[in-house]
Amino acid sequence: MSKFWSSLAKQVEPYIPGEQINDDTIIKLNTNENPYPPSKQVIRAIDEASKNLRLYPSPTVDELRSEIGNINELSKDHIFIGNGSDEVLAFSFMAFFEPGKRIKYPEITYSFYPVYAKLFNISSEQIMLNDDYTIPIERFYDSDGGVIFPNPNAPTGIYLELEAIKQILENNPSHVVIIDEAYIDFAKESAVSLVEAFPNLLIIQTMSKSRSLAGLRIGFAIGSPELINGLERIKNSFNSYTVDRLAIAGAIEAIRDNDYFQQTTTKIIESRTYLKNQLEARHFDILPSQANFLLISHKEVNAESLYQELKKQGILVRYFQKPGLENFLRISIGTPEQIEKLLEKIDHIIKPSP
Amino acid sequence: MSKFWSSLAKQVEPYIPGEQINDDTIIKLNTNENPYPPSKQVIRAIDEASKNLRLYPSPTVDELRSEIGNINELSKDHIFIGNGSDEVLAFSFMAFFEPGKRIKYPEITYSFYPVYAKLFNISSEQIMLNDDYTIPIERFYDSDGGVIFPNPNAPTGIYLELEAIKQILENNPSHVVIIDEAYIDFAKESAVSLVEAFPNLLIIQTMSKSRSLAGLRIGFAIGSPELINGLERIKNSFNSYTVDRLAIAGAIEAIRDNDYFQQTTTKIIESRTYLKNQLEARHFDILPSQANFLLISHKEVNAESLYQELKKQGILVRYFQKPGLENFLRISIGTPEQIEKLLEKIDHIIKPSP
Repeated sequence: MSKFWSSLAKQVEPYIPGEQINDDTIIKLNTNENPYPPSKQVIRAIDEASKNLRLYPSPTVDELRSEIGNINELSKDHIFIGNGSDEVLAFSFMAFFEPGKRIKYPEITYSFYPVYAKLFNISSEQIMLNDDYTIPIERFYDSDGGVIFPNPNAPTGIYLELEAIKQILENNPSHVVIIDEAYIDFAKESAVSLVEAFPNLLIIQTMSKSRSLAGLRIGFAIGSPELINGLERIKNSFNSYTVDRLAIAGAIEAIRDNDYFQQTTTKIIESRTYLKNQLEARHFDILPSQANFLLISHKEVNAESLYQELKKQGILVRYFQKPGLENFLRISIGTPEQIEKLLEKIDHIIKPSP
Repeated sequence: MSKFWSSLAKQVEPYIPGEQINDDTIIKLNTNENPYPPSKQVIRAIDEASKNLRLYPSPTVDELRSEIGNINELSKDHIFIGNGSDEVLAFSFMAFFEPGKRIKYPEITYSFYPVYAKLFNISSEQIMLNDDYTIPIERFYDSDGGVIFPNPNAPTGIYLELEAIKQILENNPSHVVIIDEAYIDFAKESAVSLVEAFPNLLIIQTMSKSRSLAGLRIGFAIGSPELINGLERIKNSFNSYTVDRLAIAGAIEAIRDNDYFQQTTTKIIESRTYLKNQLEARHFDILPSQANFLLISHKEVNAESLYQELKKQGILVRYFQKPGLENFLRISIGTPEQIEKLLEKIDHIIKPSP
């Protein structure tokens, strides 16, 4: 603590992201990156855009907003762009959640939510999941200050049907319900079809996972123009130019190259099924994931030791030192080759030769 | 106003940036961009970095921090990186200024400061400039909650000597004094030499002006490790990855190519002198600028009309509809060719042919 820090700087409890290492020999399955590179169109667009770097980017990011609107059959007035979905989440907490009014989110969920709540002085009620790790829908009704949860949930990967989301929206008519769809492209369907019927619905998505652009920092929100306008007010009081020229140019092409997006997403979903089956054959318990990761546990294997052993052998997965998750590992879906390597190492670790 | 907005979203008064237009035929002298492109090394580094976009960037940005530390003879622990200097400013208001305690900034200054004060509920005292638009040093002593001003000031361009800054630091021993050095590379010298002596000094710089990278969004702070640590706490409670892979790679090379930086900066300073002399010969009053712009006025010419006329003729300059600045125009320093064009148009407008 320093005497120069504000009480805010003293009170926050910063988020700790997964390890980011710079070592090409490591198989990195710990932060849900896409194992495939972005579309070649993205790289070409970035190369072209690098000619104009002396000029500020567009503060309104209209072209990208229109592209994202198009694929969702909405106008650009329904779209807000941010510097990664974390920034969009932070602005959303500021724009829609009121200090002193309690918001609801699941007890096991993206661990940045409690960090934002602390930063912006928002009180919160953490809703325990059901025994099967699904979300108890009714307990999200009638919130005092709003609702936020990921769909699929993280790190469980469990998907909630639109019918249930509709119930939560209908039972929070005066508050904003934020659905954090970071992993939705690997799941059944987005709640975007509910946007026109529910002015209190804000959907947040990212290009970091399904569009292979974690390194480019593009997140976005989809919602009624009045919600988007609220986000714009906060953003324009914070930073006029949150998204750089290269990121805008690349993101536009990532949306346009739909074929590539469909191909890589399909491959990841197929690999997820394969890895699930293989791990189940090795007696792992696996939650039914619709994301690009699996949350796994094993009755006879200590999760933390397995994480450590895998790390020693050059494979990085995610271990959470958090209540309720002590014996779980989260494994991002890699390429088929990476998955074979992972299985080989797991076999070596859990069934040591006599 | 929407019923879904927080009281914060309702109360903010968003900043309005200068016009950003997408028209190559316009001479754009309104947002203090560098008229020269970035170093070729920057473009090559971006091209190389675009190969790894599927992976998250470094959340700690250590390599860029070390490079910036090096040129300032400081360690990376004295450096904080943000998504443009506006983001660094926003985090600084959160980290160092306390709601309820009054900060001081000049009445004529960067107009984002009152926006941040409103957003973070910081009260403030706006200090009137002296009649010659210089900063009244003593009036910044003994602040209740901290001090912030740009050096050179914006949009006056007037530079404050280090001896005066030292006085302000010594007379605010318990509060952070932020010097916003967005334009310092066009001026006499940075206050960075005071960092080791004053743990309450935070310097904020940007790559948008002198490094020709407005389109890339890199700003940074230089200060004591305890201040940098405070900024890290806020940033890690807001967004783990604020700076993308391409921006990091480009910024590193922009720092490394010192020769190019010196050449372009020298050219701009020479052009500033030339433009000043030329405008003075046309009876404009010009504040003594050490930035990459001039703030000009003319007793017989209405600033707003001149702005409008220049715009019609394809030259964009900045007109502020603000008390105290009604009869001023801010003109960014362009290339020699752009300056000749500007003078030609001004001659045409203010001395119409009979």
